[in-house]
Amino acid sequence: MNLQERIAASFGAQGLMTTLGARLALVQEGEVHVVLPHSPALSQQQGFMHGGAIASILDSACGYAALTRAPAGHEVVTAEFKINMPRPALGQRFLAIGRVLSAGRMLTVCGGEVRAYADEGEAFKVVALMQATIVNVKA
Amino acid sequence: MNLQERIAASFGAQGLMTTLGARLALVQEGEVHVVLPHSPALSQQQGFMHGGAIASILDSACGYAALTRAPAGHEVVTAEFKINMPRPALGQRFLAIGRVLSAGRMLTVCGGEVRAYADEGEAFKVVALMQATIVNVKA
Amino acid sequence: MNLQERIAASFGAQGLMTTLGARLALVQEGEVHVVLPHSPALSQQQGFMHGGAIASILDSACGYAALTRAPAGHEVVTAEFKINMPRPALGQRFLAIGRVLSAGRMLTVCGGEVRAYADEGEAFKVVALMQATIVNVKA
Amino acid sequence: MNLQERIAASFGAQGLMTTLGARLALVQEGEVHVVLPHSPALSQQQGFMHGGAIASILDSACGYAALTRAPAGHEVVTAEFKINMPRPALGQRFLAIGRVLSAGRMLTVCGGEVRAYADEGEAFKVVALMQATIVNVKA
Repeated sequence: MNLQERIAASFGAQGLMTTLGARLALVQEGEVHVVLPHSPALSQQQGFMHGGAIASILDSACGYAALTRAPAGHEVVTAEFKINMPRPALGQRFLAIGRVLSAGRMLTVCGGEVRAYADEGEAFKVVALMQATIVNVKA
Repeated sequence: MNLQERIAASFGAQGLMTTLGARLALVQEGEVHVVLPHSPALSQQQGFMHGGAIASILDSACGYAALTRAPAGHEVVTAEFKINMPRPALGQRFLAIGRVLSAGRMLTVCGGEVRAYADEGEAFKVVALMQATIVNVKA
Repeated sequence: MNLQERIAASFGAQGLMTTLGARLALVQEGEVHVVLPHSPALSQQQGFMHGGAIASILDSACGYAALTRAPAGHEVVTAEFKINMPRPALGQRFLAIGRVLSAGRMLTVCGGEVRAYADEGEAFKVVALMQATIVNVKA
Repeated sequence: MNLQERIAASFGAQGLMTTLGARLALVQEGEVHVVLPHSPALSQQQGFMHGGAIASILDSACGYAALTRAPAGHEVVTAEFKINMPRPALGQRFLAIGRVLSAGRMLTVCGGEVRAYADEGEAFKVVALMQATIVNVKA
């Protein structure tokens, strides 16, 4: 099983991603994308997407980005993350991008953002920015 | 509508809380509790609760704690939060506690934790720690 | 050399603490205090204490609090911290308190605050709140 | 007084930057650089630069980057920041780069990094990564 297959299998085993309706969109060395369509089932009280849903897909994107750089025989767990939400998560589709910023033996630092698309076009607004610390643990 | 009713109504309007199965458990001046039962639908790949689900209920608890201290005629939005997850979110029931640490005119700082209960007893383990910044915005 | 002596020696070897004029005030299991007198040499542009000076003493307090709980034969390094500064750091004396919130085998999570005292009395205002992740590394 | 002069004057009024030996190196729309030479007076206990010194220059770089985008008649204050330190701050010279990631009416989110240079060459290692929230306040 190569890395892409391994990550696809792991993502598929995340009950929360299925519940939210999120989909793995890209896996490459040091970068992973997750897509989430808008749904009222994921809203906060004003009808925008809840920050927790946005944080969830970005956490998964960062975690799997870290996994692409983890030493052989290791899994990853998120030790902590920090997320800014500079504007309401308003859109039809949300793209979470997680990227490795620094990969150590034990800890990986990832940066991420969530882009909100109002329609099928290319234009987007950044609705979330994350900095996360991921731990390599022996599988 | 008093503050408890207002927060209950707002919580009820959060689609994500319903989707996750979360319930408002306590509202008092400066402190709000949210309860979430374990569900495989909210798991990460190893079967623990996904950090995103844990972050979601703690974000809601902190946001509503901030709302109990917001000036009249204001709503709140989360500007950012940081969450540590010191151990896997393993348990039957999770209690998110959000507390106001400092309330300013424009910004409120909240602290929060999520306690995991293995059964109906009193013993718990802290599986998440949050520090969040909430903005007061005119309603 | 017991833990208090070991931490006092390590603190004394931190050039920055001497440069800032900071002093170790308390070392106990899971909690360390650092005191810093006000100085114009540590100001930001409006004359308040610079957030960097406040963060520095709180980082040291949290790091040494973590060290009190580190396994034998281990040093600690700060992996990351997050700090809120809810009000200007205005006062004659600043007390940084670092506390262990969760101690794991590899990572320790600490919480901390800085209290500003206007004079010799007991009243203070909290000017900073920190949540930090400290790594245990073999010495 | 143009923006560059205004920021230079403000930086010059920060006692801490003088005490640390830091120097403003670049000011442009949305990005500010601060340089700090290595000094034993800024060390932690093992002789590396203390995380607090690194955080201080990066906080200043991010704050002034935010100021380049603040509405007229406004000052900025740091509400909070989060910093990762993926490796020891070992080097002869440190370059802090603060950049605006998102500028709102009230809050600005900045990203930053500190690069460590071992000598006069171009090669560097990233020793710190920051995500900061800056508030616009009426001057």
